[in-house]
Amino acid sequence: MRIISETSSDGVREQLFVLGEVPGVLWTPEGAAGTRPLVFMGHGGGQHKKDPGILARARRFVTDCGFAVVAVDVPAHGDRPKVEEYDRIVTENRARVEAGEDLAPLVADFQALVARQTVPEWRTVLDAVQQLESVGSGPVGYWGVSLGCGLGVPFVAAEPRVRAAVLGLGGASASAESAARVTVPVEFLVQWDDERVPRVQSLALFDAFASAEKTLHANPGKHGEIPAFELESTLGFFARHLA
Amino acid sequence: MRIISETSSDGVREQLFVLGEVPGVLWTPEGAAGTRPLVFMGHGGGQHKKDPGILARARRFVTDCGFAVVAVDVPAHGDRPKVEEYDRIVTENRARVEAGEDLAPLVADFQALVARQTVPEWRTVLDAVQQLESVGSGPVGYWGVSLGCGLGVPFVAAEPRVRAAVLGLGGASASAESAARVTVPVEFLVQWDDERVPRVQSLALFDAFASAEKTLHANPGKHGEIPAFELESTLGFFARHLA
Repeated sequence: MRIISETSSDGVREQLFVLGEVPGVLWTPEGAAGTRPLVFMGHGGGQHKKDPGILARARRFVTDCGFAVVAVDVPAHGDRPKVEEYDRIVTENRARVEAGEDLAPLVADFQALVARQTVPEWRTVLDAVQQLESVGSGPVGYWGVSLGCGLGVPFVAAEPRVRAAVLGLGGASASAESAARVTVPVEFLVQWDDERVPRVQSLALFDAFASAEKTLHANPGKHGEIPAFELESTLGFFARHLA
Repeated sequence: MRIISETSSDGVREQLFVLGEVPGVLWTPEGAAGTRPLVFMGHGGGQHKKDPGILARARRFVTDCGFAVVAVDVPAHGDRPKVEEYDRIVTENRARVEAGEDLAPLVADFQALVARQTVPEWRTVLDAVQQLESVGSGPVGYWGVSLGCGLGVPFVAAEPRVRAAVLGLGGASASAESAARVTVPVEFLVQWDDERVPRVQSLALFDAFASAEKTLHANPGKHGEIPAFELESTLGFFARHLA
């Protein structure tokens, strides 16, 4: 793990790093020393590790809770190169949908393919980040919606260090199989008028989690319109399960 | 309005009162003076104004937020006499369900009948309580689930002083018509395995609220098993909209 830059503002230290081929960013409280909870954040499709939505939440996790937060670029996103195989599949899928095929199973297959790469990558990132003196081996939370849910569910299912997860904007056809192996507390966000994920798919994914404690929050609005007050709930959820 | 007793414990003053035929209880911060938000709480079927679930939430509204809280006995509950007409309808409905009729429309008709009595009663209680020096004419919230939802939705729809409502464990067949006249922010609680209210009925009632801000919280478990952490969310919701 190679730290390539370090800046601080308003009490938050930001360190950009590269681990193998994976560019990432770590946020910690300024002057942090010693073990603390760590939230791993997964960005959405077409976004990157420092997307404004990721950044705003990460800052609050650091300043309100004293947590460390890490995010990395998903393959073919942010500072990472294109992946020819992925480009080819996306192009093929577009043609298949235009020819009348159902989008959901194609998205499910594609996310499963990407997750076979990201789950081991993200576990390696956890290993490296938890060796830092400012992070240590504390409890881990996961936050990710949309693509961050599609890649997050198999990650949470595979990674026993994750103790609690905020997920959402995802459907059963992509993630139900992995969700059945998730047993940690889950807060699951649904947009009631989601134009990309049918409501019945969202509710079925919530059903699929094996967690004894899971809570579904649904709000009016489209895919990208999660209301700001959900961040307060997320902070309370992570504070309850990680602090 | 006649105060019939006053006690205090752990920072909360409790005053039992009678207003006409309606027995009620008012909780305020010990030593409270001046205008403050008021939460009106509606108890569940077979419960009463000092049910443990009402009491526990009321104390937190007072101690955490400095609010006043009022609850009254619904007709034929708590300290109020039986109502022959209601007893007759309940007996008739039981026979009709045993004869194969669907329960939901019978419950809807019965709750509509009771609401025609409770909506004006509760509005009169608001008038009286807001004249007290320790309460005053601040913003009003409503909290009620199950019967407290069935009677609460028409109350919230009718009473412009109510600025925000926590409702739940109720279905569209009983309350959709009134819900379409509710425009204030609503936090709506659903028990995912509710043995009394079918899930589809709950989701349809959430759909029916005309509120621009409405948020649905669903948790695993039966009708009576709302998890304790929802109270933290309720406190945040009322603090956001009333304080």
